[in-house]
Amino acid sequence: MRDIARNGTRGLQAVETAPCGPVHLVGAGPGDPELLTLRAARLIGAADVVIHDRLVGAEILALARDGAVLLDVGKTPYGRSWKQDDINALIVSHARTGASVVRLKGGDPAVFGRMDEEIEALDAAGVGWAIVPGVTSASAGAAALGQSLTKRGRNKSLRILTAHDVEGFAEQDWRGLARPGATAAIYMGARAAAFLRGRLLMHGAATDTPVSAVENASRADQRVIAATLIDLPDALAAAAPTGPVILLLGLAPRSAAVEALNIREAL
Amino acid sequence: MRDIARNGTRGLQAVETAPCGPVHLVGAGPGDPELLTLRAARLIGAADVVIHDRLVGAEILALARDGAVLLDVGKTPYGRSWKQDDINALIVSHARTGASVVRLKGGDPAVFGRMDEEIEALDAAGVGWAIVPGVTSASAGAAALGQSLTKRGRNKSLRILTAHDVEGFAEQDWRGLARPGATAAIYMGARAAAFLRGRLLMHGAATDTPVSAVENASRADQRVIAATLIDLPDALAAAAPTGPVILLLGLAPRSAAVEALNIREAL
Repeated sequence: MRDIARNGTRGLQAVETAPCGPVHLVGAGPGDPELLTLRAARLIGAADVVIHDRLVGAEILALARDGAVLLDVGKTPYGRSWKQDDINALIVSHARTGASVVRLKGGDPAVFGRMDEEIEALDAAGVGWAIVPGVTSASAGAAALGQSLTKRGRNKSLRILTAHDVEGFAEQDWRGLARPGATAAIYMGARAAAFLRGRLLMHGAATDTPVSAVENASRADQRVIAATLIDLPDALAAAAPTGPVILLLGLAPRSAAVEALNIREAL
Repeated sequence: MRDIARNGTRGLQAVETAPCGPVHLVGAGPGDPELLTLRAARLIGAADVVIHDRLVGAEILALARDGAVLLDVGKTPYGRSWKQDDINALIVSHARTGASVVRLKGGDPAVFGRMDEEIEALDAAGVGWAIVPGVTSASAGAAALGQSLTKRGRNKSLRILTAHDVEGFAEQDWRGLARPGATAAIYMGARAAAFLRGRLLMHGAATDTPVSAVENASRADQRVIAATLIDLPDALAAAAPTGPVILLLGLAPRSAAVEALNIREAL
């Protein structure tokens, strides 16, 4: 066992001797600019260069100072996109100019953000880095439903999944996910609805298991699509979401009346 | 299926006709005041009454305005504590005076925060409410390690667990958690280290599975205790943490040198 970085004095020395950086790997939160952290807002406002994903909105980018360079390295699903290696090289090259660089990612950078690959590139280049965690989409999606992600007597664990991986649709522990009371936040799940339904039903999930889809969670154009497992693909086809969608398996909106309180305009 | 609250107009009406409220159920984040969201900071600063958990620190409470009423309803593990029913009643009684009430919880209120019980009490009393998500401890713990919670080729799902439930130590899907590459953030895990080790080894986990404990994640006194599954109880006994601890199963600090960059003083 090791006991590391008590009070952080070693860290401070390391930063002082790093040749450049740190690049800040910053979570932009789920979309609502007010769900940025204070630190994220401060760093965006001070940055020379902001390298951001497609899903980071204009209201957040507007916090950058006049003259800051804003670079969109968004990856469009099934469309033209930046390669991860090119993003890594871009971050390193800007950091090496001595610029203060913010790498801005939707949600929390540690959740489906490919942050490790960027950190490895920075390490290889001898550039310092620091992570600023953010509010992940699961939290914003649950808030839209008026539900907790964990609940006494219902679920004492939550799974955070992606419906896609490098090989296409992502295989998971379907048996566990099919159990009554299982609760999961499924990222990038909209196009995988029929796949998810098939796998979960095959492993014994009830057809009337609640599944909610939240499009643009926390944003002004947030939309909640309440469904059951059996009708999830049809519900999504009818709603035709164009923004990012988080699926919440096992959770229904608390009620139409109460859920409606919990929207952006009420805050 | 239902399509609810598009553009939120119904929600706005509902708030306008609610007799009092909304009570804001607000995530305070993992501890560092700069990891508050902009909205949380704004609401704390405007509140008449802030009803907060024990783990919300003095720097955050200092954002409340002069004259605001601050009420600590913290639950001490194994010590004297507020009962949930009394907390619910306290929130309702303050909201009914017409005061603007912030119910402030560590981390994200939807993760192990017993928020549902408070919402049900507010609903029963006819008091409006709104949720403000926050940065959960898992994200801050991973940032302390310099690691992602999900990673291509390693894990395409993350579990968020509690080591305790109403019956004591919480049983989980140990077989799934014992698999190579399984990654989990375990809340309230410090006192359950021997239990967790026993269950995981019994279900086939490797003795050298990395497990990191992060005490006071994101705070000035943050401490990382890097261990393996077999020595986790000894490592925690030696470190004797007194602050809140998040356990990260399957994750080791990226490296002592790099990890040290990622500390509060560097930001």
